[in-house]
Amino acid sequence: MDLPSVTILGLGLMGGSLALALRGRCAALSGYDHDLEVVDQALARGIVTRGSTDLGEALAGARLVVVATPVRAILALLPRVAEALPDPFHLLDLGSTKAEIVARMAELPQHVSPVGGHPLCGKETSGLAGAEATLFREKVFVLTPLARTRPETLALAHTLVDAIGARALVLDAARHDRLAARISHVPYLTAIALVAAAEAADDELAWTLAASGFRDSTRLAASGVTMMTDILTTNRTAALEGLADVQAALSELRALLADGDEAALRAYLEARRQARRGL
Amino acid sequence: MDLPSVTILGLGLMGGSLALALRGRCAALSGYDHDLEVVDQALARGIVTRGSTDLGEALAGARLVVVATPVRAILALLPRVAEALPDPFHLLDLGSTKAEIVARMAELPQHVSPVGGHPLCGKETSGLAGAEATLFREKVFVLTPLARTRPETLALAHTLVDAIGARALVLDAARHDRLAARISHVPYLTAIALVAAAEAADDELAWTLAASGFRDSTRLAASGVTMMTDILTTNRTAALEGLADVQAALSELRALLADGDEAALRAYLEARRQARRGL
Repeated sequence: MDLPSVTILGLGLMGGSLALALRGRCAALSGYDHDLEVVDQALARGIVTRGSTDLGEALAGARLVVVATPVRAILALLPRVAEALPDPFHLLDLGSTKAEIVARMAELPQHVSPVGGHPLCGKETSGLAGAEATLFREKVFVLTPLARTRPETLALAHTLVDAIGARALVLDAARHDRLAARISHVPYLTAIALVAAAEAADDELAWTLAASGFRDSTRLAASGVTMMTDILTTNRTAALEGLADVQAALSELRALLADGDEAALRAYLEARRQARRGL
Repeated sequence: MDLPSVTILGLGLMGGSLALALRGRCAALSGYDHDLEVVDQALARGIVTRGSTDLGEALAGARLVVVATPVRAILALLPRVAEALPDPFHLLDLGSTKAEIVARMAELPQHVSPVGGHPLCGKETSGLAGAEATLFREKVFVLTPLARTRPETLALAHTLVDAIGARALVLDAARHDRLAARISHVPYLTAIALVAAAEAADDELAWTLAASGFRDSTRLAASGVTMMTDILTTNRTAALEGLADVQAALSELRALLADGDEAALRAYLEARRQARRGL
C-alpha cells in the first residue's frame, strides 16, 4: 500500500477516473459529491468503498484529500475541508487553473499541507459515466507546490502520480496558467469562434459537409460550460493575452492573404507547420 | 465492370487512394504523376496497371480522366488534358475549391464533358505512401456539375462515388466554396494562429504540456503548404469572409471575458456548445 486513506471530492470524470486508477493502491478510498445519484452510482460500481453527500462524513479518517471539482467549486471547498478535518492532512487538487487555487491554499490553517495539481488529460466529456482507470496514463501531471508544502506531501503527490501512470512535472502556478491559456483555454475559444462562424454561414449544409478537420478543430467547443467559465474567469489575464496573440496572428494571415503576397504567406504557414510537426 | 478506362492525374494521397478504391472496378486504370519515383512506386505496388510521367502516354485510351492534384495544378492541367486527348471523354477533378476550376472547365473544347468533384476526407498527411482504399468510405463527395456537363458524365460520376463507398452531394460550386471556407479553410487558419500564439509564449514547456486538446485543435496546421496556399488563393473571398466572422466572434468573446459579464459569456458558450453537439 503506497498511499494512505484518500478522500476524493467530486466524482466526475476526473475524480471518478482517479478513484478507479487508485483502486487497491490506497488504505481506503472515500468519495464525496454534492449529487446523491452520483455517490450512489460510485458505490454501486465499486469505484469508492465509502461515499457521502456530507463533506464531514466523506472526510472522516482521510490523510490525503484530493479535490476534483471545477475550479471555483475547489476555491469554495478548500476552507470548508480545512474546517471539517481538524487532523493534519495532505491536500491536492486537480483544478485546470492554478494561481487562484494556490493563493487560496496559502491561506489555509497550518494543519493542512497543500499542493496544487493538474493532470493534462483533456476530454470534452464530463461526468462519472465517462470515468476510466487509464485516463491519466502517460499524461503530464503538473504539480504546483507552495512554499508551505511539506516535503512529505510533495513526495506523496509524486507517489500518486506514479501510481496512476502519469508523468509528474513540477511547475510554478503562474507559468502553468500562462501556458495552459495558450495550449488549452484559447484553443477552446477559437473552437467556439469556429462554430459561431459556421453558424453565421446560415446554411444548414455546413453541418453536413463538416468533416474530420472541422470536428477536430471544434472538439473543445463541446466542453462543459461551467468547467470552462470557471477556467476562463480564474485565468482571465493569461487567456486575454493568449487571445490577443491569436487575434494578431489571424490579422497577419488576413493581411498576407488579402495582399496576395504569396511568398510571405507560404513562409508564414511553413514555419507554423514545422513548429506543429515538432509535437 | 461499372466504369470505363480511367486515367488518374496526380498519384498523391487522393489520387492513390482513388486508384486503390477503383481496383478491379474499371476497364483499365492508368496513372500520371510528374514525379517518376511516384509513378514507379504506384506500378510496383500494383496501384495502377499503367503509369507514366508523360501526360499523353498516361491518357491514351482514357474515357474518364480524374485530376487529383492541388488546385492550381488542376487549373494548369485542364487545357493540357483537353489538348492531349482529342477523343470525347468525361472529366472529373478532386480539387478542394470549385469555383475557379468549374470556370476553367467551362472554357474547355466541346469534346470534353467536365464535372467538378470534391471528396471531403480531410487528412493532413499527403503523398502516395498514405493512400488507402478506404479513404472515401462514408465520406461526403461533392459534385458540382456545369450547365454543359452531359447527363452520362454526371451519372458516371455518381457510379464512381458509389463504387468507392462515398456519398454524393450535388452542389453549386460557389456554395461549396463558401461552406468549405468555414468548415475547412478558416479552421486551418485558426490552427496556424494557435501554433503562432503557442510560439509567442516563448516557453519551450508549451510543447511538453500540449495535450490532446491542442493536438486536435492544431492538426490542420500540419497540412501541406502548397495544397493550402492553392486552396486559400483560389477561395480568397470566401476565406476572408469566414475569417472576418471568426475574428468578430473572438472579439465578442474577448469583450464578454474582459467585461466580466458572466451570464452573457455562459449563454454565448452554451449556444455554440449545443450547435457543436449537433454534429
